[in-house]
Amino acid sequence: MDKVSPRVRSLVREFQDFPKEGILFRDITPVLMDPPAFQEVIEATCLEARNRRAEAIVGIESRGFVFGAPVAARMGLPFIPVRKMGKLPGPTLQAEYALEYGTNVVEIHEDALRQGQRTLIVDDLLATGGTASAAGRLVEDLGAVVAGYAFLIELAFLKGRAALEGYPVLTLLTYGD
Amino acid sequence: MDKVSPRVRSLVREFQDFPKEGILFRDITPVLMDPPAFQEVIEATCLEARNRRAEAIVGIESRGFVFGAPVAARMGLPFIPVRKMGKLPGPTLQAEYALEYGTNVVEIHEDALRQGQRTLIVDDLLATGGTASAAGRLVEDLGAVVAGYAFLIELAFLKGRAALEGYPVLTLLTYGD
Repeated sequence: MDKVSPRVRSLVREFQDFPKEGILFRDITPVLMDPPAFQEVIEATCLEARNRRAEAIVGIESRGFVFGAPVAARMGLPFIPVRKMGKLPGPTLQAEYALEYGTNVVEIHEDALRQGQRTLIVDDLLATGGTASAAGRLVEDLGAVVAGYAFLIELAFLKGRAALEGYPVLTLLTYGD
Repeated sequence: MDKVSPRVRSLVREFQDFPKEGILFRDITPVLMDPPAFQEVIEATCLEARNRRAEAIVGIESRGFVFGAPVAARMGLPFIPVRKMGKLPGPTLQAEYALEYGTNVVEIHEDALRQGQRTLIVDDLLATGGTASAAGRLVEDLGAVVAGYAFLIELAFLKGRAALEGYPVLTLLTYGD
């Protein structure tokens, strides 16, 4: 069951073979271009932040910034970017996650969260859960608490929820379950 | 004269030699972590959007997303991402800009803006103006109108305003003029 109106789902476009052969890419940019749809997504995510008693919003670079920053602004909560390797200028913690071939690293500033601070992690897409789970490890490595995860889209056949087991996960639109 | 309170300026941190030797990097992540400061920046940018009668907000990847998306959401305007090469799945227009060594390319979806649509281009930092001016060319190549630019920080000694001559440019904090 979608957690947003059919309008939002109808705006998600599909592109076959992007970014490479065999991948069906879900493009959320038309949702951003439609103010009522974008509002709905932000409001649903704000509600989740409230329900999880979130005290900070983490957004994962870079589409997670597009949803996470408006949620943080509307809720009056701190916004914390989790970025790709080498982008944050201060001292960082790092977490590695597996790709199809090789690995990637995400970083968070060491002073981004305080002990026990309840954090909602926001991104556009839950696929295998690799990036999200790495972001969660960073939050916990700082001594803060992963209060939950929120995504616009879930690709259920990639079983990302398994990678986030034990944490509340909100996804607004599910594909392929 | 700063267009925001001293609180915002006091939160911008400096890191010497990031991302490389000889660069003094201004880190805006503490502004994002401070809800009153983040609100001030978003409100000042919303006011500029209103004054310029903006009908769409363009955010430049990826820190431009952090400011542009909350402004679009609050104003109820479409949000359009300008992204690095190869990230947007649909048909795009491209614009090249010069780096210290070599060039970079940014892209916009071909259907992102309509003829005559007044657009505010948002990013965190005005340095040489190369990226911003490339984003402006993309907006105009789509037949839309660059109603103005808004940045949190201006590094005045890099003379980015010269690259944006003829367009209204709002910067909230100026360094080195």
